[in-house]
Amino acid sequence: MTFQLSPELAAVVDSGLLSPVRAGTPVEAAVSDAAWLAAMVEAETALVRAQARLGTVPESAAAAIMEAARPERLDLVALARASRETANPVVGFVKALTAVVAAADPKAAEYVHRGSTSQDILDTAAMLVVRRATVLIRADLDRCAAALETLARTHRATPMAGRTLTLHAVPTTFGLKAAGWLHLVTEAHRRTAALAAALPVELGGAAGTLAGYLEHADHPGDDYADRLVEAYAHETGLAPATLPWHVLRTPIADTGAVCAFLASALGKIAVDVQSLARTEVGEVTEPAVAGRGASSAMPHKRNPVLATLIRSAALQVPQLAAVLYGTMLAEDERSGGAWHAEWQPLRECLRLAGGAAHTAVELLTGLTVDADRMRANLDLTGGQIVSERVAAVLTPLLGKAQARALLTRASHEAADRGTDLAEVLSAAPEVTRHLTAAELEELLDPTCYLGAAPGLVDRAVGPDPAVPERPAA
Amino acid sequence: MTFQLSPELAAVVDSGLLSPVRAGTPVEAAVSDAAWLAAMVEAETALVRAQARLGTVPESAAAAIMEAARPERLDLVALARASRETANPVVGFVKALTAVVAAADPKAAEYVHRGSTSQDILDTAAMLVVRRATVLIRADLDRCAAALETLARTHRATPMAGRTLTLHAVPTTFGLKAAGWLHLVTEAHRRTAALAAALPVELGGAAGTLAGYLEHADHPGDDYADRLVEAYAHETGLAPATLPWHVLRTPIADTGAVCAFLASALGKIAVDVQSLARTEVGEVTEPAVAGRGASSAMPHKRNPVLATLIRSAALQVPQLAAVLYGTMLAEDERSGGAWHAEWQPLRECLRLAGGAAHTAVELLTGLTVDADRMRANLDLTGGQIVSERVAAVLTPLLGKAQARALLTRASHEAADRGTDLAEVLSAAPEVTRHLTAAELEELLDPTCYLGAAPGLVDRAVGPDPAVPERPAA
Amino acid sequence: MTFQLSPELAAVVDSGLLSPVRAGTPVEAAVSDAAWLAAMVEAETALVRAQARLGTVPESAAAAIMEAARPERLDLVALARASRETANPVVGFVKALTAVVAAADPKAAEYVHRGSTSQDILDTAAMLVVRRATVLIRADLDRCAAALETLARTHRATPMAGRTLTLHAVPTTFGLKAAGWLHLVTEAHRRTAALAAALPVELGGAAGTLAGYLEHADHPGDDYADRLVEAYAHETGLAPATLPWHVLRTPIADTGAVCAFLASALGKIAVDVQSLARTEVGEVTEPAVAGRGASSAMPHKRNPVLATLIRSAALQVPQLAAVLYGTMLAEDERSGGAWHAEWQPLRECLRLAGGAAHTAVELLTGLTVDADRMRANLDLTGGQIVSERVAAVLTPLLGKAQARALLTRASHEAADRGTDLAEVLSAAPEVTRHLTAAELEELLDPTCYLGAAPGLVDRAVGPDPAVPERPAA
Amino acid sequence: MTFQLSPELAAVVDSGLLSPVRAGTPVEAAVSDAAWLAAMVEAETALVRAQARLGTVPESAAAAIMEAARPERLDLVALARASRETANPVVGFVKALTAVVAAADPKAAEYVHRGSTSQDILDTAAMLVVRRATVLIRADLDRCAAALETLARTHRATPMAGRTLTLHAVPTTFGLKAAGWLHLVTEAHRRTAALAAALPVELGGAAGTLAGYLEHADHPGDDYADRLVEAYAHETGLAPATLPWHVLRTPIADTGAVCAFLASALGKIAVDVQSLARTEVGEVTEPAVAGRGASSAMPHKRNPVLATLIRSAALQVPQLAAVLYGTMLAEDERSGGAWHAEWQPLRECLRLAGGAAHTAVELLTGLTVDADRMRANLDLTGGQIVSERVAAVLTPLLGKAQARALLTRASHEAADRGTDLAEVLSAAPEVTRHLTAAELEELLDPTCYLGAAPGLVDRAVGPDPAVPERPAA
Repeated sequence: MTFQLSPELAAVVDSGLLSPVRAGTPVEAAVSDAAWLAAMVEAETALVRAQARLGTVPESAAAAIMEAARPERLDLVALARASRETANPVVGFVKALTAVVAAADPKAAEYVHRGSTSQDILDTAAMLVVRRATVLIRADLDRCAAALETLARTHRATPMAGRTLTLHAVPTTFGLKAAGWLHLVTEAHRRTAALAAALPVELGGAAGTLAGYLEHADHPGDDYADRLVEAYAHETGLAPATLPWHVLRTPIADTGAVCAFLASALGKIAVDVQSLARTEVGEVTEPAVAGRGASSAMPHKRNPVLATLIRSAALQVPQLAAVLYGTMLAEDERSGGAWHAEWQPLRECLRLAGGAAHTAVELLTGLTVDADRMRANLDLTGGQIVSERVAAVLTPLLGKAQARALLTRASHEAADRGTDLAEVLSAAPEVTRHLTAAELEELLDPTCYLGAAPGLVDRAVGPDPAVPERPAA
Repeated sequence: MTFQLSPELAAVVDSGLLSPVRAGTPVEAAVSDAAWLAAMVEAETALVRAQARLGTVPESAAAAIMEAARPERLDLVALARASRETANPVVGFVKALTAVVAAADPKAAEYVHRGSTSQDILDTAAMLVVRRATVLIRADLDRCAAALETLARTHRATPMAGRTLTLHAVPTTFGLKAAGWLHLVTEAHRRTAALAAALPVELGGAAGTLAGYLEHADHPGDDYADRLVEAYAHETGLAPATLPWHVLRTPIADTGAVCAFLASALGKIAVDVQSLARTEVGEVTEPAVAGRGASSAMPHKRNPVLATLIRSAALQVPQLAAVLYGTMLAEDERSGGAWHAEWQPLRECLRLAGGAAHTAVELLTGLTVDADRMRANLDLTGGQIVSERVAAVLTPLLGKAQARALLTRASHEAADRGTDLAEVLSAAPEVTRHLTAAELEELLDPTCYLGAAPGLVDRAVGPDPAVPERPAA
Repeated sequence: MTFQLSPELAAVVDSGLLSPVRAGTPVEAAVSDAAWLAAMVEAETALVRAQARLGTVPESAAAAIMEAARPERLDLVALARASRETANPVVGFVKALTAVVAAADPKAAEYVHRGSTSQDILDTAAMLVVRRATVLIRADLDRCAAALETLARTHRATPMAGRTLTLHAVPTTFGLKAAGWLHLVTEAHRRTAALAAALPVELGGAAGTLAGYLEHADHPGDDYADRLVEAYAHETGLAPATLPWHVLRTPIADTGAVCAFLASALGKIAVDVQSLARTEVGEVTEPAVAGRGASSAMPHKRNPVLATLIRSAALQVPQLAAVLYGTMLAEDERSGGAWHAEWQPLRECLRLAGGAAHTAVELLTGLTVDADRMRANLDLTGGQIVSERVAAVLTPLLGKAQARALLTRASHEAADRGTDLAEVLSAAPEVTRHLTAAELEELLDPTCYLGAAPGLVDRAVGPDPAVPERPAA
Repeated sequence: MTFQLSPELAAVVDSGLLSPVRAGTPVEAAVSDAAWLAAMVEAETALVRAQARLGTVPESAAAAIMEAARPERLDLVALARASRETANPVVGFVKALTAVVAAADPKAAEYVHRGSTSQDILDTAAMLVVRRATVLIRADLDRCAAALETLARTHRATPMAGRTLTLHAVPTTFGLKAAGWLHLVTEAHRRTAALAAALPVELGGAAGTLAGYLEHADHPGDDYADRLVEAYAHETGLAPATLPWHVLRTPIADTGAVCAFLASALGKIAVDVQSLARTEVGEVTEPAVAGRGASSAMPHKRNPVLATLIRSAALQVPQLAAVLYGTMLAEDERSGGAWHAEWQPLRECLRLAGGAAHTAVELLTGLTVDADRMRANLDLTGGQIVSERVAAVLTPLLGKAQARALLTRASHEAADRGTDLAEVLSAAPEVTRHLTAAELEELLDPTCYLGAAPGLVDRAVGPDPAVPERPAA
């Protein structure tokens, strides 16, 4: 799909040139201006259907509105510009929608937006947009989780260096790392699902009392408000809200929080991939795709671009979520500014987090793991990576403090001399007094000090259904 | 309690001079350096008890450590300074704790921190601190909720101006406003409780494999790691963790998010109180306490200081929570910096949100509501506040667009002439053709246009158990 | 201008539907994807001109590239999508640009992007975009300043209530408030100008050594790098950079900071306007424009929408600026993620702050000030607003503590009884012993207690050139 | 210095246990509660001296106040707790200070805080605190700059791998990296100095009109307000302010911005050090100090703790600065909450940024650079690191696209086969047709492709005064 744009139109295009993490992804389209506009139409038509169901609007009028109200009949750019006049896009939208309906059925046009208020429409539309985005996000997280399960199982006992504060610490397994990533992805999925299930309709009228709706109902009765909310929820597929939430912004803040968690969870995976992809480390590489990761200057490079994109999202979302907590301070029955500050950050949260999830699918399903390089790197410190273990073994023999001091001294000596820890230790009488050369060699083998890593993977992932018997770690 | 401080000590005191919202509150003490230190001691002693339970540490050593390990035997300030050498306070703490134990029982000292790592202790201590803070917070939120229930019930049908974008919109009731506040407080309580229930122990050893713990166990067996985690959870009262979470920072990010939600929820109440407390509005006043709200310059003032304090917290917590999302990007098996950036913001989140909750109890249990002033303010616009209703009534008679245009014109004319909307409307033939003077008067009575407000209060709060029959709204 | 969009295109339109503060404003277009793309073309062509100037590229090739390289020949949306492959849009852009040039002059195409790297082009383009945005912003701030000067001069001595913590404090003048706003606008202008003057070209090549550029130069000589930077600065009109700033992100962080300051400065004005526009206060109204400020529900409303829009921007920019400080942590010679996280927040900072400035022009040039209502509101507290003054007068007579206690007591009594402070004081023997009724009356006149307000206005604004003599305040 | 604390006191100690980056540093003391209290005393005494200078207060009273007003006579903790009653600490402080003065000279006590308001004192005190912190910070930055100059000069031509997106890109020199760090430190210093020079006194009285001060002056005259501001500025050493800035929060926002810049600048250095310190990279190590960098678990570790501490600060400050931009939205003549939200974040910004600067001195003055390891790492990719150069050389021979494609193919083949690029290229007819083996070898030598790196160092740092002649790079 290629198209040349007129200058006027080009000025309002945002297709991700500055945000490649979501450029052209499904979530980008799902939260676009056009998607919001379509959701606004849906919010208005669902309202009129709900009112028809309760007898407040004639069925024929509702049908005519349903028929006429099509997003493509509205001029998106003109509506956006008109929004400056009223600080929100709904006033102009209702006017335009009414005109569209009136062109087909002037009587039906009387029933558009009846008893309603801008915020009912825009908030409900927002929830519809969030719901659609979460469907995409959950599907991508499912794919990520499946890929991670496979990685974790495959490498449950693949030894590699555990690194803390940038340095080799003690051995671990790549499977445990993948299981940790899976844990975060699973948590993100759980929160996304819980959010999606709770997204409420907004129905409150001008100041949250539903007075306008009641005024337009002939004989509303005591429970008309409740029934209208129920009917609206039914028509939209959203949850009914206990109270109008014009200034009780839980759903917005929650959406921001879920996106921040999701983006940060994936961001953790990205920084790990980057750490392991470094030229000097070389333990993982991103999926090789022709042209992917190319540099404009250096022909040899295959940049880890997927991790880069994910991290770029993770660096942005938490601050956007902070905006959405801040706008909970919505004074009175509708804020002059706090509400209006929500929309763009909400959209940005969704498309950054959603774009990151989409990118993570590519990253995780194609990640190449170099177990040989992991094994080779384990030997880089000449045994220092198991200094903890040696200290533990020597502690009952020498005492805790002495064992520790010995290992510290020996490690530094080995590092300073550029030799192996084994060599230094095998020259230390405190050690040779207690351990044979063979014992020492076994003690210094990093693959023998994986702790509970493989078992933790099993606990996190469950045993591999395809493998009847598990080999000892 | 008054005490003069030495200059050295004064330099490390932070008792809320710059953060009055939490100065001297219980939560301030619960998250203080001293509380963290005590929690670190508890994390170490619980670990040794758990190890003793599994036979890794002799019961006698565990008992001796329990006996000797008292926070007051440790030099808090010295430990804080020593933390610079290792970037965290645990290394120096373990050294000092070992010395304290060794002074009483040198053999037992060998078992202090056995197989452990700094992060296991500090993360577990953090969870203990969070748990204690949440106990205080939940108790304060319970009190807030009780006060709000009373306010909502008492004022379920107390009419007041609903305000949007700073202007009178349509009438509402104060009870509905209070019910909305209650809704937020209830949500905050629910999240706090869910957070508290899920706070996990941290137990992973140097790089999350528990290798150190296993090495020190004589015959660990396949499920030793699981049993140790279970035992540790039992001893601390925290939840067992599926995986070590050294770099899977869900509990920290969640704590930040809950605090941000809580502070923002209370901040919404605060900005509403401020809006209603303005000199020109005068609909609520904060509880009058001698000296409270005094100004250093103006003797007449009784400043709404409680709302001010709460808002001051709400303006800070979201950004601190953003820090805690950001630090989820913890590379490798332990981050060099991301972990270390968590501690102070985590504490600050808790004491700001907790201080705000404590302050909100005072505010909400003593808030004075001036129903007469609310009623008087409703008349300020001379009927314009029910323009929506008049338009609704005229719509079937004149058509939607004409009705709306008439009301817009009449409202602006009334505003420009400084007269009542009633006066303008009663001179409009389109109106008098359809409505008698009496009908118009009833139509313009703001107390007759409360919509579903009282019913929404009932839905949110439940009917007042003390009132057998409810009068019609 | 109205246009219907195809669904594909609609999905990538962002014309401010969710961000009315900038919808359709000049700054929106100036920072659009299309503007960035044009700036990227400009960065490439300026580079080839600079290289031609130094003899590295034949003049004819440079001319051919200049001729062929037109933004409208590039497919913006396709480039955006291709950016996912390389994590930045430049790789695909260079390919497409080369093809465009090659179509006209295959030999010239060899010289496109010669020796260069993605970041040189994108960073330089960013600076060109920032520069254009600042031109628009400064012009708008100039208009704001002119309007504020007029407001400050006109109302230098117009008395109104000074309000602190939501309550009447002591009198002030509207001119002093406007002078304060002007002070902020002037500061914002100063910072914007300083930023614009320092915006540097980026020229570093793949890792900041300019090696690629030198390699392509025939006999580069010792100072070729310097001369190339100078030539590039000359061609773009940007400042030369001391060092390549691929990972020294001062210009980006500074832009964020200036935008945050600007948006917050205008946000202060907005919250003041909102405070004064409240129905109960009514001291200012936004410029009345037909249809402006309309509500979708309430025909009577004329919402203060301009202040609302401005505040909506102010609530977002500081967090976006925080992202741009955070991305200064760009590891190595180019970050995998920190750089990529800058672009969208940078653009968003500019269009929110710029949109707010554009909106502020409308607000400030048309603001209606109701001096009568200000005067009337001054009397609302029955003299309490000058309690500070009365206390000051009584202090030498009664002592400081006693004077203060008397005023506190009398103020609270007056407030509780709903009467004037004058009445309570004139019944107090401590007062009547020292002051006559006439003296007390004068003392309680709020218009006689303006302090240095008018003089401060003169200091801030300078005396009105149109008024030969200044009347006493 | 060790001291055991009572439980009451322990509850209010914050000596950096949770923020090691500033534990025990000079800046920590300089911004402590005690330092603020001392600054508040200084603000009050400077005010009374200024008033005495203008004849408003008797010299004897001023002298008595100067004599009596000592911070150590005030109960810091009690004042902090009292601050809850009035939402700021000044009301209680003035009461306590007045009592202290009255105990010595009851008449003088009448002149304490005369005509003043809480915000004048606290804002002026804040500026005094900021000024002292900046003195410490600038001294530390001077030391950092000196160390960096030395590093840059020493290693101006020390070749190392330039890394982009985690991979080897092209060669650079360590001196150029250090020169970049120096550039950031110099910018941070410049901003800190500019900030310090502009810090203003606050003098506005209750609502910014100075009315209280004028009321207490006998014959104030037209310019009394100006003269009082000048005198106050003189006494405090701060700058005079054009206007009272109770709600014009430029100095606060600027302080936050400078701290955010500083912390982020140092954070860039920290992430670079971490990148180079990785076990697999090993090009730099932090200064070795006994015990420094020890792990509680692993005896062999010498963690890069200084970089860790600095990064921990950098991850926090930007969000705190965002709070301080947000609080610029201070409504009316004093905000109920925005002002109160500034104090703790302001202090935190200063001590985190200041602590980071102090830590950076240690890091940079003792950093060990391993030029041999840098050289060895350059060979890791078997020549790929100069693929850009080879492409440049082949471009005139093969054409740009062909040259690039050849290099891409050859690099990937070399990587896949685990061999050197040289080997692959020397088997490629397109290459051997044009280049001899010797030419190819020279072309692939990374130390011959440093570009302008050494010259850029000279430009940034100036030539080494101790070296008469510079060797060719």
